[in-house]
Amino acid sequence: QESTENRNSLVNEELSSFTNTRQGRLVSGLIREFLEFFGLSATLSVFDPETNAGTSYGGRASLARELDIVDEDEPKCPLLTDVIKAKKPSQKTSK
Amino acid sequence: QESTENRNSLVNEELSSFTNTRQGRLVSGLIREFLEFFGLSATLSVFDPETNAGTSYGGRASLARELDIVDEDEPKCPLLTDVIKAKKPSQKTSK
Repeated sequence: QESTENRNSLVNEELSSFTNTRQGRLVSGLIREFLEFFGLSATLSVFDPETNAGTSYGGRASLARELDIVDEDEPKCPLLTDVIKAKKPSQKTSK
Repeated sequence: QESTENRNSLVNEELSSFTNTRQGRLVSGLIREFLEFFGLSATLSVFDPETNAGTSYGGRASLARELDIVDEDEPKCPLLTDVIKAKKPSQKTSK
């Protein structure tokens, strides 16, 4: 009874406008890379139709490049780990 | 045929040891916050049993505190956006 068209309507508008921004695309790309990294196929099979994230995802290497992350040859962690590691301390004191 | 016990066995060991680290917990927390932020209930209903992330998730406020992010009163973006914004430039030159 559910058609492929219905699945697309699952994507909510707030999310759509978020993933249309550069940062939104990076964020959903990082989540997608995490799901792929750990082989979470069940989650991926729901995440993709619910978010449309699969359509704009260009793979880990391209994401790392765009985030300016020097990736390892045999990565042991999802890229999100590198992003957290590279986080500057809070701006509370510096601003 | 599938019992609740079987669902727990979906969680793979690589992911388990990752989410047992502080950084792994932060990463899966950020993903969970993203899914909640956009109300992606279908993905959440698969993500939680597949990753066990729900059990250690303490909510956005607690995650922001742990990541040293000054959160807004009415957040317009998932926390992951703040983490990406706070990313330092690549360490290519400093290493």
